[in-house]
Amino acid sequence: MFVRNAWYVAAWDHEMTRTMMRRIVLDEPVVLFRTTEGKAVALEDRCCHRQAPLSMGKLVGDIVHCPYHGLQFEPSGACVKVPSQDRVPASAKVKSYPLVEKNHWLWIWMGDPAKADPALIEDFHWLDDPKWRYGGNYLHVPSNYLLLVENLLDTTHLPFLHPESLGTGSFARSEFDVTREGDRIQVSRYDMDKPPAPFHKQMGEFPDGLNVDRWQIAHFAPPCFVKLDVGSAPAGSGMRQVTDRGSRWMNMWNLNAITPETEKTAHYFFAQAYNFKLDQQWISDMLAKQVHDIFLQDMAMVKAQQINMDLRPTPAPVNLGQDKAWVAMRGIVDRLVKEEQQQAKAA
Amino acid sequence: MFVRNAWYVAAWDHEMTRTMMRRIVLDEPVVLFRTTEGKAVALEDRCCHRQAPLSMGKLVGDIVHCPYHGLQFEPSGACVKVPSQDRVPASAKVKSYPLVEKNHWLWIWMGDPAKADPALIEDFHWLDDPKWRYGGNYLHVPSNYLLLVENLLDTTHLPFLHPESLGTGSFARSEFDVTREGDRIQVSRYDMDKPPAPFHKQMGEFPDGLNVDRWQIAHFAPPCFVKLDVGSAPAGSGMRQVTDRGSRWMNMWNLNAITPETEKTAHYFFAQAYNFKLDQQWISDMLAKQVHDIFLQDMAMVKAQQINMDLRPTPAPVNLGQDKAWVAMRGIVDRLVKEEQQQAKAA
Amino acid sequence: MFVRNAWYVAAWDHEMTRTMMRRIVLDEPVVLFRTTEGKAVALEDRCCHRQAPLSMGKLVGDIVHCPYHGLQFEPSGACVKVPSQDRVPASAKVKSYPLVEKNHWLWIWMGDPAKADPALIEDFHWLDDPKWRYGGNYLHVPSNYLLLVENLLDTTHLPFLHPESLGTGSFARSEFDVTREGDRIQVSRYDMDKPPAPFHKQMGEFPDGLNVDRWQIAHFAPPCFVKLDVGSAPAGSGMRQVTDRGSRWMNMWNLNAITPETEKTAHYFFAQAYNFKLDQQWISDMLAKQVHDIFLQDMAMVKAQQINMDLRPTPAPVNLGQDKAWVAMRGIVDRLVKEEQQQAKAA
Repeated sequence: MFVRNAWYVAAWDHEMTRTMMRRIVLDEPVVLFRTTEGKAVALEDRCCHRQAPLSMGKLVGDIVHCPYHGLQFEPSGACVKVPSQDRVPASAKVKSYPLVEKNHWLWIWMGDPAKADPALIEDFHWLDDPKWRYGGNYLHVPSNYLLLVENLLDTTHLPFLHPESLGTGSFARSEFDVTREGDRIQVSRYDMDKPPAPFHKQMGEFPDGLNVDRWQIAHFAPPCFVKLDVGSAPAGSGMRQVTDRGSRWMNMWNLNAITPETEKTAHYFFAQAYNFKLDQQWISDMLAKQVHDIFLQDMAMVKAQQINMDLRPTPAPVNLGQDKAWVAMRGIVDRLVKEEQQQAKAA
Repeated sequence: MFVRNAWYVAAWDHEMTRTMMRRIVLDEPVVLFRTTEGKAVALEDRCCHRQAPLSMGKLVGDIVHCPYHGLQFEPSGACVKVPSQDRVPASAKVKSYPLVEKNHWLWIWMGDPAKADPALIEDFHWLDDPKWRYGGNYLHVPSNYLLLVENLLDTTHLPFLHPESLGTGSFARSEFDVTREGDRIQVSRYDMDKPPAPFHKQMGEFPDGLNVDRWQIAHFAPPCFVKLDVGSAPAGSGMRQVTDRGSRWMNMWNLNAITPETEKTAHYFFAQAYNFKLDQQWISDMLAKQVHDIFLQDMAMVKAQQINMDLRPTPAPVNLGQDKAWVAMRGIVDRLVKEEQQQAKAA
Repeated sequence: MFVRNAWYVAAWDHEMTRTMMRRIVLDEPVVLFRTTEGKAVALEDRCCHRQAPLSMGKLVGDIVHCPYHGLQFEPSGACVKVPSQDRVPASAKVKSYPLVEKNHWLWIWMGDPAKADPALIEDFHWLDDPKWRYGGNYLHVPSNYLLLVENLLDTTHLPFLHPESLGTGSFARSEFDVTREGDRIQVSRYDMDKPPAPFHKQMGEFPDGLNVDRWQIAHFAPPCFVKLDVGSAPAGSGMRQVTDRGSRWMNMWNLNAITPETEKTAHYFFAQAYNFKLDQQWISDMLAKQVHDIFLQDMAMVKAQQINMDLRPTPAPVNLGQDKAWVAMRGIVDRLVKEEQQQAKAA
């Protein structure tokens, strides 16, 4: 079960072209394309007539032609022509999903279109902010999407799953605090006066032997967004005392949107934004690749978890202190799903 | 659910040899072979003893030897020898399916053998008529068999799915009439004074620029047979007024038998018969290959439909005027299935 | 459903090393490894925290480190360290399965550990007896494990499935007797004064033209053990009259342990022990390979049976005289499963 009344990321902006692309979102087939004027469109990828995938058809101007019997649909989803007859039945239409292009991502709304307020789109302004650059990418997730949200909310896994890049032994014991504001969760970690993680050392060009104060503040917003504010400053430079550390020292935002595909698979959109060496394009490219490779280690892990969870009966998991965040996250998502179902029943 | 009391095509005659062949029909495993005298036999491909597939065994004379414990079965399905003991239990037998060789196809009856009247076999005399030749072939269908029956009953898809061979833009708007006689359905289409379809132009050797009057009369018989009487005559030659147009002008019969394998797969037997240039063998070969390639486009389509239909919930389809034929077809098949179930319950 | 309170073979001793190995047993993921002192350990391969497979982690000394968040488990299954916090929750542990190394096999107990009495381990002393040598191997079974137990209890299949090695036409009609002692079944076969099976001729170096008296005594012990005492002596040498034929003539014990992996797959551990030409190492190697190849024929058969049984509805099987043994075997295993379920309900 998924939260339907929510904005999810359906694609990167550069994935959206004049070539129709099929992507299953929340168990529904969706076709994505751009109009001649460049506007992004998302339609149900299942003709209302005989369920053929429109993505196998043709895009002529802004009109999608079904590959099977040639029905024509405009971006609103309305059928505007049935080649075999004069009359177009009033019921002939496919779903057109609210789709908003913002911060280089295409945001889709799979629920009640009347509720699709663009103001609800989660903030990912870093991807558009001239003070930032980023490297971004996509991965297919071989598990339920929440296993990946958990992964991002419990970064004590860094020293174990990513020791050669993100972890340092001390990080699992870093100071840790979970706060909540409505349905948003914040997980703060500080690891003071320690050798930098290999990745941070590389990005910050810290000299050998220098210890750093590292911060990592994870921001969760339902149903599937995690933004990690991360950075390292030379130890003792007063990083925790200032409110503008992101502009003073090496700072990156690891930005994550995980969109359910089916109950056991998902789409993973992510970017690593940074605010230093902005004149050096190679850093964006390197980050896109490097974070992708690090996240492949996470993909192997969530896949293995999914397999183990599917071997029934599965023992109830033992929760640790660090699990406070994702336990709250699961509670929020479960409640939102339940609320939607009750609203649907009431309606 | 399938209609069981009906003749289905199980194989081409040339597929039946002294080498046993396994084929699943209506969810049952069947082994097909010929006796030393050439008679075609269909037995359950599942030994009555421990369910081993007989097709993995040996055919010695007319006796099938089970690969596992050597039980021997005669073409009637009766077990005639149990190597490990003298006595052959009376219950030791496998199903022997009524199997009739007619018109180059092997017709199998999966239901009550007492009802297997060969007079009920659907007429495909073209495959044996000296006034006709044909090219035929087989394809495995990656969907429920009825999606392919629908495909053949609604040929307004030709200009869209097969534009380079069978379609012309006008064909989707051709004159159209559906008539019904008992459980048989006839769908007539006439497309007058139009450029010929590429395939018709090639077969009819029509000169460039010549318009034609095209006819296409589809004959459905339950549960899974569609025969298309198709042809083109020079425009204005009075094609519609005569009753013997098939013998006057370029005429082909596209002959189709689709046999359910499982709920989501099927066997497709088809042939393209023609009554011109009978002295030219290459036409048969070319037709077998060319129609096969065209039908591969249909296989891709029904597979994509099946995938989309399996993504639940699927919206209810919108029916168009052209769907009259397959809506009637579905009604007939559903009623026949229900009648059989009621008879089974009553018995 | 499986018998849980029983010893099953989990691995060959040489498979157990300092590299962790995952194996699913009775639908549960298990990780197998040796401690620094060489003791074999079996833990649940599913971390109690977030279900990660421990086998993807590290073995440091005798402590298993979870690959995900670094939890550390000792061979008892107790969690001894949680890197992210001081406190180790009392509930933090994974199952540690009783595991006994005996006769070159690792014996695992998947049920109630309190009942895991090593005295209940099935006897396979041949694998350790200096009067015997053996060739052994492993195969993955593509069917329910009981189909393979059946296979071994009804060796009338030898002349049909393995004619080039184990069968002789007469063997299916050999004298046959089934006796039962508690939950143990013995199936005796004698085939007197017949040409030797190819494999026996080879192993016994019988001269051309010599007839032999062959014996085959299968011993079944629940839930999944079959030991076949087989041999051939020159015809007329009084083989049946003596009680020590195993030491007088060419004798082999075919030793089989089949461990359920899932309802439709299993692990097959087997060995061919022999008591002649003990100074010739090549015989062990040859037997390991040759019996493996013969058993691949059985794997193809049980896979084909499983496929045919999954095509529903499957007709009820016809039982023959030779099926007395496996009918009794099924009855015993079914009863043991039911007894366990009743005990579990009562508890």
